[in-house]
Amino acid sequence: MHENKHISSVQNPLIKKAALLKEKARERKKTGLFLLEGVRELKIASDAQYEIVTIFYCEAILAKDENNSFLKSFSTDKLITVTTEVYKKIAHRDTTEGIIAIAKSKSHELSTLNFTTQNPLILVAEAPEKPGNIGALLRTADAANLDAVLIANPKTDLYNPNIIRSSVGCVFSRNIRTGSTQEIISFLQQEKFNIYCAALTASMEYTSVSYTGPTAIVVGTENSGLSNEWLSNSTQNIIIPMEGEIDSMNVSVSAAILIFEVKRQQKLGR
Amino acid sequence: MHENKHISSVQNPLIKKAALLKEKARERKKTGLFLLEGVRELKIASDAQYEIVTIFYCEAILAKDENNSFLKSFSTDKLITVTTEVYKKIAHRDTTEGIIAIAKSKSHELSTLNFTTQNPLILVAEAPEKPGNIGALLRTADAANLDAVLIANPKTDLYNPNIIRSSVGCVFSRNIRTGSTQEIISFLQQEKFNIYCAALTASMEYTSVSYTGPTAIVVGTENSGLSNEWLSNSTQNIIIPMEGEIDSMNVSVSAAILIFEVKRQQKLGR
Repeated sequence: MHENKHISSVQNPLIKKAALLKEKARERKKTGLFLLEGVRELKIASDAQYEIVTIFYCEAILAKDENNSFLKSFSTDKLITVTTEVYKKIAHRDTTEGIIAIAKSKSHELSTLNFTTQNPLILVAEAPEKPGNIGALLRTADAANLDAVLIANPKTDLYNPNIIRSSVGCVFSRNIRTGSTQEIISFLQQEKFNIYCAALTASMEYTSVSYTGPTAIVVGTENSGLSNEWLSNSTQNIIIPMEGEIDSMNVSVSAAILIFEVKRQQKLGR
Repeated sequence: MHENKHISSVQNPLIKKAALLKEKARERKKTGLFLLEGVRELKIASDAQYEIVTIFYCEAILAKDENNSFLKSFSTDKLITVTTEVYKKIAHRDTTEGIIAIAKSKSHELSTLNFTTQNPLILVAEAPEKPGNIGALLRTADAANLDAVLIANPKTDLYNPNIIRSSVGCVFSRNIRTGSTQEIISFLQQEKFNIYCAALTASMEYTSVSYTGPTAIVVGTENSGLSNEWLSNSTQNIIIPMEGEIDSMNVSVSAAILIFEVKRQQKLGR
């Protein structure tokens, strides 16, 4: 691939721009671009029709055999070889694979969401903050093959490097939409979803509910739970009984318990 | 509390020792001591009969009213006031509460484990590594009020500050034991546990199993799953069906789905 461009200076303007995209949500928002890292992540993003603008790769790091052929599927003018020093400046991970790309973000507007199944099962998370939790929610959404994940009142932009990393690329492959709590409630009501809100206090245990029809499982933050707006617009507030001292679980754990109970019931009903 | 000792120098030997306990697993192992931070964590550790050796508190940070009376429950010669600068040197958290203690670690030997219920439900995790995952597992163990959590072939010491933090103190209140995989398997066989191993490939879905008698749910690492030693000594290998692209969930998420299915079945059976 000697015809490719090569960058060896960390002062190169494109490298500086890439570093900014990694570090600043503001820069990602302003440009509509983001940085992604890793062979698997690039494959998933590419399969999910993300537009890949530029691929930096470091020949000293990249495992050659299988990945060179993958890189050949991209047009040569997008490929740039970089030195290890340059690579490290834009890399987010410690254990890295030698591939970083600039890609165009997608729209996550609620109005573009359509369902292909008759009784969709979706997860709504209100104001999740920690990238690791959002990543784990998205992995669960992948495992359960949810029809969509809706993030209400988002606090963290989806292309945060820690979300990309902790979601193992599911942030690209899943159907994700964002909006205000009010917008999402209106949308769900219009689409005739049954809304099940995980509440910190509720009389109905999650295992006592029959989940039927279009189903939305809604979870809030670990500290304060869901807003009253959600709790008062739900079909049913549900609770996972806590028998310990702490009275809270990790939000991605709670969400998974609820979602897999719905899946279990759906399977029985088949 | 003007009779208390006061430390204003970050060079003070006790402060240096505390900082070492925070940073070095080796130091914790050598001395049998560890550092814990936060009012809630101190309360839980104290309730769980951990011996508190020294309490550093920073009057400039500590919310006075309620916590002063809590501090009075400790003997005065254990209390040391510190300056904000000294506090910051030994603090692990960004958002902090003004209380840090040195405490004695407990033994986590398998031989000391006794069960008080007839059909105990326990979680076994083989070689979990990330403190955040271990913390989430312990919070789930708390919510489900598990009889014990066993860590096989531990990679991270239990008193790692990130485990204490992410477990919200459950590392103190839960019944935790560690041992080699072989030791734990022998123990479970001797105690007549049914051993259910979460496998990456298994023919039996976790919802198809009837969990009865003393039950051990066993989970491995996200990357490689459980060792063959576990898989070949299980009563039944079970699988959470994955319908997505990624084929793995966060280990604390998988464990919670399995544990809460057992809880659901137990509740139905009552």
